[in-house]
Formats: sequence, C-alpha cells, structure tokens
Amino acid sequence: MYNFKNDYSEGAHPRILEKLVETNLIQQLGYGEDDYSKEAKTILRNKIDNQRAVIHFLSGGTQTNLLVISFLLRVHEAVISAKTGHISANETGAIEATGHKVITVETVDGKLTPEDIIKTLNDHALAPHVVKPRIVYISNSTEIGTIYSLAELKALYLCCQQQKLLLYLDGARLGHALTAENNDLTFAAIAKYSDVFYIGGTKNGALLGEAVVFNHPDLAQDFDYAIKQKGALLAKGRMLSIQFLVLFKDDLYFELALKANSFAMRMAKAIKEKGYSFLTESTTNQIFPILPKSVINTLLLNYQFYIWKEIDHDHAAIRLITSWATDETQVENFINDILNS
Amino acid sequence: MYNFKNDYSEGAHPRILEKLVETNLIQQLGYGEDDYSKEAKTILRNKIDNQRAVIHFLSGGTQTNLLVISFLLRVHEAVISAKTGHISANETGAIEATGHKVITVETVDGKLTPEDIIKTLNDHALAPHVVKPRIVYISNSTEIGTIYSLAELKALYLCCQQQKLLLYLDGARLGHALTAENNDLTFAAIAKYSDVFYIGGTKNGALLGEAVVFNHPDLAQDFDYAIKQKGALLAKGRMLSIQFLVLFKDDLYFELALKANSFAMRMAKAIKEKGYSFLTESTTNQIFPILPKSVINTLLLNYQFYIWKEIDHDHAAIRLITSWATDETQVENFINDILNS
Amino acid sequence: MYNFKNDYSEGAHPRILEKLVETNLIQQLGYGEDDYSKEAKTILRNKIDNQRAVIHFLSGGTQTNLLVISFLLRVHEAVISAKTGHISANETGAIEATGHKVITVETVDGKLTPEDIIKTLNDHALAPHVVKPRIVYISNSTEIGTIYSLAELKALYLCCQQQKLLLYLDGARLGHALTAENNDLTFAAIAKYSDVFYIGGTKNGALLGEAVVFNHPDLAQDFDYAIKQKGALLAKGRMLSIQFLVLFKDDLYFELALKANSFAMRMAKAIKEKGYSFLTESTTNQIFPILPKSVINTLLLNYQFYIWKEIDHDHAAIRLITSWATDETQVENFINDILNS
Amino acid sequence: MYNFKNDYSEGAHPRILEKLVETNLIQQLGYGEDDYSKEAKTILRNKIDNQRAVIHFLSGGTQTNLLVISFLLRVHEAVISAKTGHISANETGAIEATGHKVITVETVDGKLTPEDIIKTLNDHALAPHVVKPRIVYISNSTEIGTIYSLAELKALYLCCQQQKLLLYLDGARLGHALTAENNDLTFAAIAKYSDVFYIGGTKNGALLGEAVVFNHPDLAQDFDYAIKQKGALLAKGRMLSIQFLVLFKDDLYFELALKANSFAMRMAKAIKEKGYSFLTESTTNQIFPILPKSVINTLLLNYQFYIWKEIDHDHAAIRLITSWATDETQVENFINDILNS
Repeated sequence: MYNFKNDYSEGAHPRILEKLVETNLIQQLGYGEDDYSKEAKTILRNKIDNQRAVIHFLSGGTQTNLLVISFLLRVHEAVISAKTGHISANETGAIEATGHKVITVETVDGKLTPEDIIKTLNDHALAPHVVKPRIVYISNSTEIGTIYSLAELKALYLCCQQQKLLLYLDGARLGHALTAENNDLTFAAIAKYSDVFYIGGTKNGALLGEAVVFNHPDLAQDFDYAIKQKGALLAKGRMLSIQFLVLFKDDLYFELALKANSFAMRMAKAIKEKGYSFLTESTTNQIFPILPKSVINTLLLNYQFYIWKEIDHDHAAIRLITSWATDETQVENFINDILNS
Repeated sequence: MYNFKNDYSEGAHPRILEKLVETNLIQQLGYGEDDYSKEAKTILRNKIDNQRAVIHFLSGGTQTNLLVISFLLRVHEAVISAKTGHISANETGAIEATGHKVITVETVDGKLTPEDIIKTLNDHALAPHVVKPRIVYISNSTEIGTIYSLAELKALYLCCQQQKLLLYLDGARLGHALTAENNDLTFAAIAKYSDVFYIGGTKNGALLGEAVVFNHPDLAQDFDYAIKQKGALLAKGRMLSIQFLVLFKDDLYFELALKANSFAMRMAKAIKEKGYSFLTESTTNQIFPILPKSVINTLLLNYQFYIWKEIDHDHAAIRLITSWATDETQVENFINDILNS
Repeated sequence: MYNFKNDYSEGAHPRILEKLVETNLIQQLGYGEDDYSKEAKTILRNKIDNQRAVIHFLSGGTQTNLLVISFLLRVHEAVISAKTGHISANETGAIEATGHKVITVETVDGKLTPEDIIKTLNDHALAPHVVKPRIVYISNSTEIGTIYSLAELKALYLCCQQQKLLLYLDGARLGHALTAENNDLTFAAIAKYSDVFYIGGTKNGALLGEAVVFNHPDLAQDFDYAIKQKGALLAKGRMLSIQFLVLFKDDLYFELALKANSFAMRMAKAIKEKGYSFLTESTTNQIFPILPKSVINTLLLNYQFYIWKEIDHDHAAIRLITSWATDETQVENFINDILNS
Repeated sequence: MYNFKNDYSEGAHPRILEKLVETNLIQQLGYGEDDYSKEAKTILRNKIDNQRAVIHFLSGGTQTNLLVISFLLRVHEAVISAKTGHISANETGAIEATGHKVITVETVDGKLTPEDIIKTLNDHALAPHVVKPRIVYISNSTEIGTIYSLAELKALYLCCQQQKLLLYLDGARLGHALTAENNDLTFAAIAKYSDVFYIGGTKNGALLGEAVVFNHPDLAQDFDYAIKQKGALLAKGRMLSIQFLVLFKDDLYFELALKANSFAMRMAKAIKEKGYSFLTESTTNQIFPILPKSVINTLLLNYQFYIWKEIDHDHAAIRLITSWATDETQVENFINDILNS
C-alpha cells in the first residue's frame, strides 16, 4: 500500500537530519535565542526583501494560526475566511477557542476576493450587535490546491488597507504555491502585499516547523509572550531554526516543492488524458479527480488516499497528495493503473 | 563559557537521532497514529503498570499543563499550586489564558501538603463568590529541586480523593526525581497515586516531547480534540513517539537522569565542603547554592547560570543545572574553581 | 412618530412597578436568596409541571444564552443553530467569546429539524479535526416570527437524545409563541421536550429579566458559580424575582403576549388584504411584510421600523413589532395608512 | 432581626421608583440610546469636569470590572490588585475567566502604593516567561472601608504613567469614599488621576447600575461591542440611565452616602467608647470591630452581619454595613446593645 493521503507521511529531508546530528552537542541558549535562529532569520529576511520583518519559528499550522489571530484581534473582532479555509474547516474550533468568531464565505475556488470582503463588511454593519471584522485569512496554496495570482493578492491587500483590515496568509503549502506552473508571486511580493504570513515547513521537508513573518514590526510587539503563553515556545528552539536554515540556505525549500508539484501534475495529466474531470483546478501538490467508484475501489487496493466528496451515485472525488518524499516509481505505477482502469 | 543555565542547551541523545535517521523514510500515518506511537505507549503502560492508562505525546511542559488543566476543569473551577509551581511562576499566565484561576500556596520546599489543601478549601468556602478548587498541581522534582516521598504523595492523593479533587503531577524532571538518592517513588506508584501526570522528555534527552498519562481512561475521553484545538497535534507525530521509544526501550531515560543528578550532587558536595549553604535542599539536577557575590562574579567569567535570588548585601543564591549532556570535565573545572574560591 | 421597531420601547407593565414600590423597603437577602425568588420559582415549577426543575433569574437574552451554553459545553464542544438564530446573528460573537463555535444551518423558516441535525453530525465526523456538536439551540418564537409545533419539538428532542445532544430553547419571546393562533405547545411540553430553556421577560412586560429553567437538576449543578463569574448575579436579585412573580401570579404573562400578537395579526391581515406578501409566515408579534419602497417611504413619515431586507429594485421587506404596550390607536392608524397606500 | 449584612438589602431610593413610574410609557430607543442616557451622561460629565469622558451604564460591579479589564488588556497582559481587592477575592475568577491573570499584592490597609507597583514590575521582569502587568486596579472605598487621599491617588497615577500602566478605580462605594470625614478627593480629581473608573449605583440607592467612565475617549473606542458581547447591554437601557439621572440631578447620591457613613461612624464611636478595637481603620459605611465572641453571639440574636475573621480563641472581627436605607432606630438600638454589652 502506498500512501498518497498526505504530505507528512515521512520524516525530514535527509540534509535536515544531517545538520541536526552535526550541531547536536553544541551548547545554545534556549527558547529561540540560539545562533541558528539568528542566522535563519537573516536568510529569510533577505529572501522576502524586508529587513524590518519580525520572524518567529513555531511548530505547526493550527498553532501558528491561533497564535497570530488571537494576538492581533481585540475581544470583539473577528476573522474572515473562505468556508474551505483551514481555520474554518480543520482546526477543531481553535480560533473560537481563543474567543473569536470565524466569519465564513462560500467560494468556488477556495479564494477570497475584494467583493467577498465588501459584502461581509456590509453584512456586519449593525454595530454593536455583530462582531467587527478585522483580519482577512487566506491560504496559498488553498486547501483545494488553487493559488493566488499577484494581481489577486494585490487587489485583496489594497481592499484590506482601504477597509482597515489586516491580511494574513497561511502558507502551510506556500512552497507548492510559489513553484506552481501558473504562479507569478514571489516571497517578496507576499511580504509586500500581506501584513502577516507564514512559511510552512512541516509539509515541505521539515520534521515540524512554520516560520511566521510579521511584515510590519509594530504588529509583532510582544508576540513572544503570546508564544510562551499558548505553550508554543520550544525550550530547544534550535530544533526549528536549524530546519529552516537547511531549507533556505540553498533554496532546498523550492526544490522540494517543485518535485511534489511535478509528481501531482504528472498524475493529473494522466487522469485528464483518461477523460476524467476534477473537482478543483489545482496546479499544486493536491489534486481532486472525480472518478467512477469502481475505479476508486480498485485503486484502494494499492494506494491510500481520502475520498473527498460524493459526486453522484457512481462517482466521487478523491484527494491525492504528493510530497518531496514521494516515490517516483509509485507515481508511475499509479499513472499506469489509471490509464489501464 | 560553559552553560549551567539549563538542561536544554544541547540537542538530543545521539541514539534518538540515530533512530530518527533510521526510520526517516518509512511512511506512517500522521497525527499520532503512527506505529511508533503504539509501540511507545505499550512500553510506557508496562513501566507504570497500568494497562488502562491513556497516553498522548505532546511538545512541551507549558503546552501539556495548559492542555490537561483546561481540559479537566469546568468554567468555575480552579487549580491549586505552590507559589513556586511552574504554572504559577513561569508560564506567562497560560492557565489563566484558558479561563482558570491558579490558587497559589506559599511553601518552604516547593511541595504541597494535605494541610495546604484543606486550608485552601476553607478559604474558598463562600460559594458562589469564589472559584471552586478542583485540581491540585504538583511538580516532581519541584522547580527548586526537591522531591516527594512515597508517603507524601500517598497522603496528598488520599486527601484529594476525600475532597473530590484531581491530583495532577508535572513531571518535566520526573526522571531526575525518580533517580535522586533519597527517592522511594516508582513510576507505578506515581500512576497509582495521581490522576494524571506527565513524563518529561525535553529536559532529559529528547529534542522535544512530553508523555501525558491519564491513569483513568474516563478522564481522557475526547482529549484528542483538545490537543488539536490548542495547536498541539503534530502532523508528524512520529517525531515524538520515536523519541520516547528510544528513551524507554532500555531505560535510557533513567540512565540519563542519574548522570545529571550525579554531576549536580558532586558540585553540591564541593560547595558544601567549602562551607557554603543552599537555598533549598535539592537532591536532583538543579542546585541553589548561596555564594558570596565576589565568588559569583569570578564564576561568571567561565560559566553561565542564573542568579536566582538576592540574599543580602554580599550574598546571592544561584541556580546550577546539569543534564545528560553535561561535560564531566566542566563539572570538575567548576568544582576546582569553587574549592579554590 | 410611533415606534414599531421593537418590543422594548416602553418600561414595565404598571403592576410590576406597583409591586416594586410596595415591597421596596422590606429587607431581603441579596444575590437571589430573597423570599420573592422562592415564591416565583415555586409558581414557575408548577406552571411547567416539573418540581425538580432548577430555575435562575438573569438579566437578558444574550447573557442567558452565553451563560447556559458556555456552562454546558466542554472545551472542544460546539452548539448548532439556525443561521438566523440570535446567537449566530445578533450577539456580537458572545458564544465564540466563551470559546465555542456556533455551527450554523441554513433554514427557510428559522427552525431546525432532525434532518438538519443528522446532516451536521455527518459533516463533523472527522474527529479530532473538527469540533464536537453537543448542544442544539433553537428559538421559539424564532427571530423571524415562526413557531415550533408540538410534533416538531418532540421529534427534535428525540433526535437529540438519540445523538447524545442537549436541546436548549431560547424563549426571549416564548409568551408570544405560546399564545400564537397556530400554537399547540404548552409550558409543560417545553419542559418535557427540552433540556434547558428560558422564559423571556424583557420583551413581554418586564423592565429586564429572563428565567432560565434546567429541566434536569444535574445539568444545573454549580450554575450559580457561573452566574457570578460572568457578572450576571445581581446584588438586588429581588429586582428580577418580583417581576416574574407579578407576570406569572395571574397569567399576566400570557395576557400581555396575546395582546401583542393580536395587534400584529390585525396589521398582517390588512397588509394581506391589500395584496402584499410576507417574507416569513409569522403568527406572532413580529411580521415581515414585503412592500413597495414608495409605500415604505410614506410609512416612515409616521412610524419607526426596521427595513429588513432588499427584495428587488422596487420592494423591500420591513419588520414590524408590537408589544403589550403598543397603542391600539396607532395600530388602527397604521392599518388605515396601509389600506390607503 | 435587623440586617447590617450588606448595603443592598432594600430596593431603590423612592425618588428613583417615582421617576420610573413617571416615564414608564414614554417610548424610547433601546440599548442605551434613550434620551435619559444622554441627559444623565451630560450631568456626569459636568460633575467630573471632563467633557471628553465616555460613559456607559452597566448592571453590576463584577460585570463592570470584567468588561473594563478584559477590554483593555491584550492576551499576555495582567492586572495588579491588592489581595483584598474585589476582583481577587470575591468575583469567582471573573477576570481569569476572560483570560487574564490577577497579580495580587499583600497590603495592610487594602490600598496599593507606587512601591507595590515597582516591586511587582521587578518581580515580572523575566519576559516572556511571565505576564506583562498593564492595569493597576484599586477600589475606593476599599473592600475594608479605607479610602485613598488625593496625594496617594496622585502619586499612584504618576507612577502608572511613568510605567505605562493604566489606573482603573472600582467605585462600587465611591459615594461613601467621597463623603468620608477624612476625604479630600473629588469626582474631578478622580477623573484627572485615573484612566477609567466607575461610579457605583447598586450600593448607594439604585436598584442596579454602575456608571463606567473612560477619562480618555480613545480607551473607550468600540467598548459598546464588548458590552453587547458579554451580555451586559440591556434592551431597556432607560432602567439604568433614569436611576443615575435621579441620583445625580440634585446630588442625592452624596446625600445618601453621607447618611450611610454617619450611621456607621456613630456605631463605630460607641464601639470605641466601649473599649473595643477594629480590624481596619474605616471611615466609611463598612466597619470591622473586634468583639468578644460572647458579645457577638448576643448581637446575633437581633442583628444579621458577617463574622469576618477569627482573631483568637475568644475574639472575632465582624463586618457591619449601613446604607442610605438603614433605619436610624435600629442604629440606636445597636448602639445601646453594644454599650450595655
């Protein structure tokens, strides 16, 4: 059985483990004050072309989302998200548990537009009987594999600024977005057209780790208190910083994401050739083909994946995910199995 | 400069890294459903002699404390802690941030007694104008290096049961407690005489990781939701379980703690021989000698450590911590420096 | 300008003020321990035919909703509500502010059905990545004027019991529901087919006050702590209990609601006769006629009311509310103005 | 049995009830938008000599405290209070329930000094492992009957400003403080030397009601959302504003407090004459005499009061409270009983 269920089935990229071994017994200060943190942050600030950015390393996506959002909101403020957004659909009410409402918007492609924002604001006009929207949460790539273009992000950020909203971008799979074939965004553009974003490590080669970037230092003031308070401050912060050091020193991060995407696109191509359609127009490492249930059942004999959505009596959409660690032979096997289905 | 400031200055015990490398590319289910989790939990259940125990692996001590306490308390309930307790003194209001009061008790040795509990209950009799105490939080070893005896733990647990309170033991340094020269507790005794406890990995050889043990399965019902909600569910749960597997397969855990303790006790012996006294009667890997400030200043030229407490114009207490990774040569250097001070 | 905007434009029914004056200088214990509380609770327990019910008097609807829901839920649990439900639409994220998600369901008539519940449970199957539904919140009458029948409530409660969910009924306008022409529910039926409900006073003759009823005493255990903690325990609890005493001693409560309903129905009848339609099929004291904007603008010269929803370029739905204090002459004036429009 | 147990045993001052009756059927907007609110706020702004002050009317002290404090604090910030402070001792963890730690300071007289503040800040220097103090909470009169002088308040406020702390004054019994024989503070001075304070109505003649005053309008921005969210926004806001209108139109507020104080001082004088001492040096309407238990037992035959604190085997401190509604004859009876004891 080969696992196409998610992009965290394996450990870390070997170079990360090598570096952990190599640095293991060098004494360092705890709680993120280690030398590797400083070095990794310098590299990242250069990559995003923002020397004023404040960067912290955290353990996972849900942790990062709840920390950033609860830190930036006042008690009566809320966050706007696509209904498919991770904070809405997959985080066990983590945001609500910090006291804040997630206002959801129905979308076709998992992306928010300025029109969505304006409509949401209009729907929340009856102050003080409603929450006050303050953060717009987006994911890139989205939870259904789509990506934002530069024009889309820019328009959304402009709208946020006009409406005094903060734009926060969840980059759990940011590497996959930035290496998609139809992408025209860069790290620097994201840093310019968002207030806060995070660069996901867990799903792109790290054992664990996300780098949260505050593009404006004033927003980050005292964030270290919040990290500690929510139980997210690792004593051995080196664990996180070393991984980002390895991932970004030679752009390994992009190399790994590109590999994952290319595997997914090869699988998508075969599926398309075979005449099947897709639930969403993904160009990244998650694809959602709609297959006959008989085909799905045959595939399930050799592969693990999620059945995502019932389409009709005879068809369902499934989710296939590839990663930096995906075995090329298995990709080829899968393609053959599809073509022969 | 050698660092006696804390027990997380280095990475992990080499055997842990070896195992991470060895298992790195084996596909596993995410979110704690990996095979290593099952194996590690079986080993731990045997160690504590409680086959019904429910065990989860988490990332750090503050995270574990806030998760357990907020999960077990209802809105109006509170936790009792020694004033020196980690949840009271060192966690940035993490418990309060989940909505619950920490009722603090002044102690001489960092330990709670049945008398402390009864007095606290009497002080909270004016319902409903006061919170309702529900959990008793203790640490073993304590934040000032002392440990509980079997008789003390048993008496405290009996008191808790009579008063319908839950007893929760923070074992960030449980290995050091159980290998102290004056210890008469065992894992099995702790499992028997507490409701929930955790076994600390971060401060005894792991990169990160704490194993929380619910001695009664009904208390653990749905705890997995809470782990996810608080951002503590690692996608690659194998990271945590593999470490506990290595630490407990051949009792490496106790070996490492014993080593840390023995270094601290050697340093303590020298300090005592030199005629200095101590702030607390520690028998574990943290010691708090009271030294002349002139001596402290000389030591600071070669060693890093916390100045813990001003004692008088000329003296202060310092904190020295050793770990499994402490360099024996540096311990000997320090002893020489003390003896020649 | 006459106000049809809401049912709290005036003070209290005069008999309530008389009783406040009459009892004013009689010393009573504070915090709900007054003699009037005991008397009012006895009367209510008889009315609902449940001697085991635990009753508390609170100040307002949002306060009652947030108290009951946050008290009954554990950290990872959530409440299901119609999208039009007050906790979803009109309470500034009060439930989320206590840490819990409100799962919303689109409905046509503001009411939840067993099918809605089952679908919601199915949508929340992927534990622990989603919240766990635990309470079903309904309003009777609903926020759009409709009411539950006995059969509907019974079916919903049966479904809740089978699914281990609690059913909580918001009775801000319960009097209006129970006196609607198409109603077949009674207080006793509501007490039998719900776990907790509240009887609204503020919108039916009281200055302020809601009576929350726990039909099963075990659910109410320690609720007094929560009342105090959320700032809802009035020092002079007599203020609330005296009002319920007056409202329920001679069924004044029903008399007042009936009057409000009959005014609304007279207005609705005229609107229907004139050929206009309605947004919702209300039989209570809130009606939502769809009128030409030209008619609305003329009415606005003499009456205050909410413009509820744009229907098309020329039409909008408005909300008209009547109460125990509505002036019959103004009702007649309004009817004439409609008929002559 | 006459009740000296608290200052909320009776209803409201008769003039308040008269005004409620007189205005009862005049239609008003809900939620604090009524004409009486505007009028009452204008009067109060004049009294405190601050035209920029933002004022809201709330229902009770705990509600006001938790609203103000949770609104002004960010997630990692905390409030400093005397250990005897109401938020620490008598509010069922209401502040912690909003997510914030109450840092307590031991005092002899229930009052905080600049030295207390500086020491607390020093004790919270180890960022980010500790909360960040941000609000200083004081009560005037204090929970043990003492009051702040102008010099004391000024010094404390200066300290707060230097340390970037907000000063919040709980005025549940502010009338009693300002009419104490040794008082030199005024409303205007309090408005000048604090950031936020509240004027207590419940304990000085109102049925319920506290007026919270933000001396700087920027601090109050969006506070109305918080009021609604915490369930504190009364639909019939007129209930609160009318009471403050009556209390402040002709300084009835001070007249009532003065009466309460004078009764307490007469009782204190007799107790002193008889040779008994006091637990605290109160000059307001709460006194804490230390009496032989035999005397206490005799008094309990005719009067209700709290036994406050065991002093020794034969003595205890009791609390006696007077109010605007206290019966002068009963005061005289009590004095006779003391003198003849």
